[in-house]
Amino acid sequence: MSDLQQCLFLKTLRGEPVPRPPIWIMRQAGRFLPEYRKVREGISFIDLCRTPEAACEVTLQPIRRFGFDAAIMFSDILTPLEPMGAGFTFGQGGPKLDHPLRDEKDIRALRTYPSREGVGFVAEAIGLMKRELGDKTPLIGFAGSPFTLATYLVEGGGSKNYEHLKTMLYTRPELLQELLDKLAEQILDYLRMQVEAGVDAVQLFDTWGGILHPQDYAELVLPVVRRIMDGLKDTGVPRIYFLKGSAPYNHLLQDLDVECCGIDWTQDLSRAIDELPGKAVQGNLDPLCLFGSAEQIRRRATEICRLGAAAPGHVFNLGHGILPPTPIDNVQTLVETVQGFTKE
Amino acid sequence: MSDLQQCLFLKTLRGEPVPRPPIWIMRQAGRFLPEYRKVREGISFIDLCRTPEAACEVTLQPIRRFGFDAAIMFSDILTPLEPMGAGFTFGQGGPKLDHPLRDEKDIRALRTYPSREGVGFVAEAIGLMKRELGDKTPLIGFAGSPFTLATYLVEGGGSKNYEHLKTMLYTRPELLQELLDKLAEQILDYLRMQVEAGVDAVQLFDTWGGILHPQDYAELVLPVVRRIMDGLKDTGVPRIYFLKGSAPYNHLLQDLDVECCGIDWTQDLSRAIDELPGKAVQGNLDPLCLFGSAEQIRRRATEICRLGAAAPGHVFNLGHGILPPTPIDNVQTLVETVQGFTKE
Repeated sequence: MSDLQQCLFLKTLRGEPVPRPPIWIMRQAGRFLPEYRKVREGISFIDLCRTPEAACEVTLQPIRRFGFDAAIMFSDILTPLEPMGAGFTFGQGGPKLDHPLRDEKDIRALRTYPSREGVGFVAEAIGLMKRELGDKTPLIGFAGSPFTLATYLVEGGGSKNYEHLKTMLYTRPELLQELLDKLAEQILDYLRMQVEAGVDAVQLFDTWGGILHPQDYAELVLPVVRRIMDGLKDTGVPRIYFLKGSAPYNHLLQDLDVECCGIDWTQDLSRAIDELPGKAVQGNLDPLCLFGSAEQIRRRATEICRLGAAAPGHVFNLGHGILPPTPIDNVQTLVETVQGFTKE
Repeated sequence: MSDLQQCLFLKTLRGEPVPRPPIWIMRQAGRFLPEYRKVREGISFIDLCRTPEAACEVTLQPIRRFGFDAAIMFSDILTPLEPMGAGFTFGQGGPKLDHPLRDEKDIRALRTYPSREGVGFVAEAIGLMKRELGDKTPLIGFAGSPFTLATYLVEGGGSKNYEHLKTMLYTRPELLQELLDKLAEQILDYLRMQVEAGVDAVQLFDTWGGILHPQDYAELVLPVVRRIMDGLKDTGVPRIYFLKGSAPYNHLLQDLDVECCGIDWTQDLSRAIDELPGKAVQGNLDPLCLFGSAEQIRRRATEICRLGAAAPGHVFNLGHGILPPTPIDNVQTLVETVQGFTKE
């Protein structure tokens, strides 16, 4: 087994004993870092996602500064959609789809493609990142879940009430299903490409899966998540499923075949561990806690490490992405606290 | 016992047997109604809240049109804040506070007052509404919870991440506590005034209580809710607590002394009933379901009625406020479905 396989992060995801939880942070390669903002002065967000050298650079930035226990490739969950025929622009108000999908014509016009051809630059970026990270720091690949991607595709961007998506759900559920199936096929291919290119683990982000009644979640969202996760099993890389606001749905995830579930900050970590037997958990500090005092950060992070020790594995993370105005020093305090923690 | 006390809504909240669940809808007096929008052409939102005759008229509108089983007084959760020294304006982007509260000086400047003097127009409006509603339809009074009100006061309006409130929580929790205590005192007085003026039940809206870790919710939010609910007990009116996104916190509400808990649409109603033994429940149709087909509305509403029958009492409602663009005909379909339901 290579040195990399012996790192804290991968051992934790395999359920092997470790002296302390590994730590990485969602959106660690991003706007809260001054060195990231400097890179962005010279390149647009979309071009940054599409340029392997630049994506590699910003992926490495948080590793250099904080020594996180895992890197996550810099990209955006919308990246694989453009070659499907769904182009986005990114402005101040977030992503904006050129043509929102509203009927069967729109959805049938969406085409799947071989990821190597459509988004080969992601594989290339992964190659660069792996070379730079070497045997010390594992690299996480990722994608958005079909449902979360569908919210952007149908709404045409971010949304408050998901009026268009839910109108489709409550009038033509079979059409939404068709969209989710198509996205699942593409996302599985996309994640398999990432694994072939060298990522050591994958995370599926389901930021908006939590806007549904549990029965709709179980019938609509979970089956396509399962299809993707099952389709990755033979690759052997650990699979993390992050569903924001998962508390009402945790019991539904028990027989989802993944190594780890992400837990947001609105849940008690101990309860989540009980509800997810046999799985590692990842989380769950409130990203806003990093706006607090060093004492609060230390106290709360230590408590999470303590509770997480009861799980088959615990990866320390925030309960959602880090916010751009987060003070850098507080991130340093957090990393030192978690990396200084010792299990009893 | 008066005829009114024999109505479905009050019997349900007392845990007495009823042939079907009563139905009312959060924000039923509001922008989804053309007759409401017509009233608003001639009067601002704030003036509407402050003018008893106008508030009475829009309170009655949904009762006349749909025959809901309860009326809710038209007002805004921010109404009692202005006489505390926290004035708001209402624009397209929602409420905007004149001076957001950020430090102890701001919070200590906030003053409590006798509700009869500061917001006597609410008592007056209730008097008019009761006279119009007569012995047929009960009237619900309401207030925002201290925590939910605090989010508006500290952020200065609506918020996405609650950066200022959470900075206060994670740096100076004792200051936030001071604010919550002051608000609890005012809100209890405000709700007692409503009861004295004639409301038949009260609901405390905790729209934003669900943004915290359960431990913070238990330490900070719940105690002031409890103080208000306990302080209303001797009035004898049934008390409803609506916490949006309550799934991770339901177990903490078991010993809260209220007659009924509101349940949003992200939860399975049966699980919520199990987690809240001895309490009536209110909910829990997704407001967006009213954008769906008549068949979906009927099927889902009937299922909720069926599940709700297992609770000590079930008030049919949406899981959150009805949205302005909701088609009127679909509300009619919903009301007919629930009022046509017969328990087995």
